[in-house]
Formats: sequence, structure tokens, C-alpha cells
Amino acid sequence: MNYYLGIDFGGTEIKIGIIDENGSIVTKDKYITDTSKSGAEIVAHIADCAQELIGKSGVDQKNIRGVGIGSPGLLNPETGQLKIVTNVPQLNGVNFAEGIGSHLGLPAFLDNDVNAMTLGEFFFGAGKDFKHVIGLTLGTGVGGGIILNGELHRGASFTAGEIGHMSINADGLYCPCGNYGCLERYIGRDGIVTRFKAYQSKGIATGINEYLDNGEITPKAIAMAAADGDKLSLEVLAETGKILGIALATLTNVLNPEIFVIGGGIANAGDLILEPARHELIKRAYTVPAQAVKVAPAALKNDAGIVGSASIAVAKLAK
Amino acid sequence: MNYYLGIDFGGTEIKIGIIDENGSIVTKDKYITDTSKSGAEIVAHIADCAQELIGKSGVDQKNIRGVGIGSPGLLNPETGQLKIVTNVPQLNGVNFAEGIGSHLGLPAFLDNDVNAMTLGEFFFGAGKDFKHVIGLTLGTGVGGGIILNGELHRGASFTAGEIGHMSINADGLYCPCGNYGCLERYIGRDGIVTRFKAYQSKGIATGINEYLDNGEITPKAIAMAAADGDKLSLEVLAETGKILGIALATLTNVLNPEIFVIGGGIANAGDLILEPARHELIKRAYTVPAQAVKVAPAALKNDAGIVGSASIAVAKLAK
Repeated sequence: MNYYLGIDFGGTEIKIGIIDENGSIVTKDKYITDTSKSGAEIVAHIADCAQELIGKSGVDQKNIRGVGIGSPGLLNPETGQLKIVTNVPQLNGVNFAEGIGSHLGLPAFLDNDVNAMTLGEFFFGAGKDFKHVIGLTLGTGVGGGIILNGELHRGASFTAGEIGHMSINADGLYCPCGNYGCLERYIGRDGIVTRFKAYQSKGIATGINEYLDNGEITPKAIAMAAADGDKLSLEVLAETGKILGIALATLTNVLNPEIFVIGGGIANAGDLILEPARHELIKRAYTVPAQAVKVAPAALKNDAGIVGSASIAVAKLAK
Repeated sequence: MNYYLGIDFGGTEIKIGIIDENGSIVTKDKYITDTSKSGAEIVAHIADCAQELIGKSGVDQKNIRGVGIGSPGLLNPETGQLKIVTNVPQLNGVNFAEGIGSHLGLPAFLDNDVNAMTLGEFFFGAGKDFKHVIGLTLGTGVGGGIILNGELHRGASFTAGEIGHMSINADGLYCPCGNYGCLERYIGRDGIVTRFKAYQSKGIATGINEYLDNGEITPKAIAMAAADGDKLSLEVLAETGKILGIALATLTNVLNPEIFVIGGGIANAGDLILEPARHELIKRAYTVPAQAVKVAPAALKNDAGIVGSASIAVAKLAK
């Protein structure tokens, strides 16, 4: 049996795990990202944690074929170099793949976290029976990964997949990215919460106060209230799905994929969002490609980060 | 030297030509599409015309490697079958590639006309130094072809590339396709003319009457008036470019291409449209992919149809 190590790097936390060639997690753990350390120290720390995890796992290191590292920020997947990591700037310019790989004596590959999630779903999750797979993550922002003909499409400067920054309304809300009407402004965390509060401020009844998330209205709180039947929460989620469907219709017309795999926190609301998204997609997209595409929830859930990151190595090595 | 035969099929006219392996046209001619004939008769007629053209060309038939056929409508590029040809319904279901290819004794390949144009620009035109090339044709409608990593992306049901039916305004103009705010509604032929007439009806001065196209205001008339400095025409073209740029920004964020190649009638206005498009793209798209992409006019001009169609065969055979 072949194994792959996945490192899901984030500004506050690092998840590391080992998966087997079927995508099952053998072992996993999580660690703190110590942002007071230098870039080289962070690299060494991650490698040490991974080495320790391998040691405890019972997996023979020589059966681990490689390491996949998923990271937020701007990076070069061909060289393995991080370019701009917003919350950990000492990593800018650091060759993460080479640094971690050489510590472990294993081939290591870097890609962004949304491409990692999409690869994970493609190899082991909702997208495993398809070759044209578009992954979306709905969280603070809206991210995307695009697999066409079984290959991740990274583009000319490795920035392809910014689905959150499709404009769905040329004269819409200004987005800090410089565009107007970006999808993320409507169905990213702030977009959802802002819409909810706008309706609430008009006096529409809601039981949201029973579900607050550390005292705040968040997409998670809205999803919990909706699951219990709160009408305003249900309406805001349905509206979120409808807006998602507008973007999926454009992607369907332009790229004619086989499946959209939707992950990220709010996607846990499942069909409360996905059913209106499907409905809007079918209304708006051409019939032939609309009938050819599925809209499915991500299958990997909490392990999406580790399995996805490991899948970066699977994509490179498992041919 | 290798040669390729290109057949640019249309509802009123068929252009046939032979290109050499550098994309230069050796010979070409055009023929009438006789829509009173049966599907089989149309196939036989096209093959006879092509055979006669080969005979007169001086090219030895054994040096012709294959035939590429570009057609409007819905079709299957894998089987070579036409599915829905709006203006010539007797061709629905006809295997165009097999029919024409067997008459000529040459391998023949079918694809849609916009994919053909994009392949032509990719092999022999403005896109020849690039591997991620998006072609757009601005005409009655707005078509698109997408080449990623040197391969045409056709998608799950061979309908990818419907760039004219990206929604740039979720609540915008209704489009007969079922969507709202489709790019084509704003910068297709009717969109451009409607905008022009709306401004004109407000009394904005224009010298358009000197340039009418068979007595009508058309994009061609507007482009001619603009070339001579007519202010309203210039403004409508600049606006057309700006709207195009909105869509190109979304495509840049999502697909991170190296070049957009813009063809079709109104694209002959060149920088009067393309410069505002570039400006809007840079304003709206992420900096890194925006800096990585060019917006260029199609290079093949009047021969785009023949060279593009022949390029369908080049893509299949010239590896």
C-alpha cells in the first residue's frame, strides 16, 4: 500500500495527516502556527511535527510516496515557493515544498488550499467519478478550483480559480479586489450576514438570537436556526443558493463541467442552499450543459484539508 | 510539405480552402449552401466542391493529411455528427465528418465555428506563442473558444465556450437563452445598435447617416463613422469595449489565460474597442492575472474561417 502525507497549512493552525492510496486517513494531528518564529523555523517545526507523526503512525516511511502541502495565499506550485502569505509574511519567498520535503527526505509539492480541496474531492470525494470538476469553498471568502479533463487548471500565473471574484453584477457592490459585484460580496461570510441583518432591521421576525455564534450572527448561526425552521434564516440561505446558482450558470455555459462540488462552512446547510442553486442554474444555463452538470456537497467534510493537501502529492505521483 | 483542407460551413455560404502546414492559404473558393437540398445532397455537394478545388490546386492529394470542418450549431466533435443546425435542419443528425471524409477518402473532423476560429488563431494567428488562449467572436452573437494548456476545452457535452452567455448583470436584460444580463445582449449586434439608437433618440448629435449599411445603423456603420471621428459612434464603441472588459476581467480571474483573441466584424474597430476593454480588465481583475494577459485582435481576418476550419484537422493530426 502507498501512503501520502498531507499538510494543511493555515495562519493559525496546521493540520497534518497520512492517507492511504484510497484516501482513508491513517493518522492525523493538529499544531499551532507560531507566527512569532522566522520562516525557516516555521518550516523546520512543520517538518518535525510531520516526522513525529510518521514515527507514531506505524507507517513505514519508505511507503510514503510524497508530501502535499496546501496553503492559503499566492504561491508558485511549480517551484513550491510561497509568494504572499497575508497573515504570516515571514514566509513570503520561502520555498515551502523544498524546505519541508528536504527535512523529511520526501518529494513535496505545494498548491493553494482551494485547489487542494478540489483535488481531494476529485480523487476521493464527490468528484471521483468525473473528469471535469469545479470545486467551490464558501467561507469567509469564496474560493474555487477547476479540474478539466482530469487536470487541475492553474493558468498562466497560477491564479486560476478565483470564482469568488466573478462579477455577477457589473454595477454591483464594490469589492476590495477592485471589481464590482463579485460573487464573494454576496455569498461570502460578510455578504450573508449583512443581508440577514438588513432584513432583520426591517423588523422581519427571526429566532436567530437562540443560535448566536459567540454572541454574533454568523453563517453558522443562520444555518443552525434554519435547520430548526427559522423562516428568515431559511430565506437568507435560499437567497444565498440562488445567487450561487447565478454564478454556476455562467460557469456552466463557459466551462460545461460535470459537477460542482460545494464545500466550506455554510455548505453544511446542504440542500437548503444547494437546491435553490440547482434551480437557478437550470433556469439560467443552456439546457444541454445544465442537464450535464450536478451540484453536490463536498464529501470530505472535516478531513477535506488533510485529504486535499495529500491529494496534491497524489496528483503528481500516482499516475 | 503537409497540407490541410478547411471547410467553413454556414447556412448561406460554404468557404473551402487548402492551407499548408504554416497556415498559408494555397487556394480557396466559396460556394452557395443550397438549403433546398437534402442533407445527403449537401454533404455530396460539399465533397464534390472540395474535390474539384483539390484538383485545381496543384496539391497532390496524398499530401493532404486531413479535413477540418467548422460549423455553427450544436454538434458532437467526437463523432463528427451535427445535432442542431438552426438554418439547415435537414442536416440535424447527419454525420458531417464521416460523410465528407469518406467522399474525399481523407480523415475529417468537425467542430463548431468559434472553436475553429480559436484553433486557427492558436496555431497560426495572434495566439500562436501561447498555450492558454481564449477566442471571442463579436458578431450577431458573441461566441467563445477556450484553449487551456494547448488543448481545446470542449466540456462534458461539447458546449463549453458560451462566453456570450456569461451573465454580467444578474438582474439585467432578459436573454432568449433563459438567462438575464448575458454579455451578448449588450455587445452582440442588437445590443450595440440598440444602445446607439437610444442615445440618438435623446438628440445626441451624430453623423451616422452618412455611413448607413444598406440604409441601416449596424455595428459596421458605427465602426465606419467612429473611424471618421463621429463622437457618438466613438462613445458607443468605447462603451462596448468597457462591457467586453467586464467579462474579460471575470474570465481572467477564473481562468488566468495568456491572451484573449478578439475577432468578428466589430473587432475590426481595433483599439477603439480593445483599449477600453484592456482598461476595464486591468481595473477589475486581480493584478497578477491581469498583468499576465493580453487582449489582441484576431490576426487571420477574412481567412479566419478557412484557416480555422483546417486547424481542426491540424489539432488532431499535426502532433
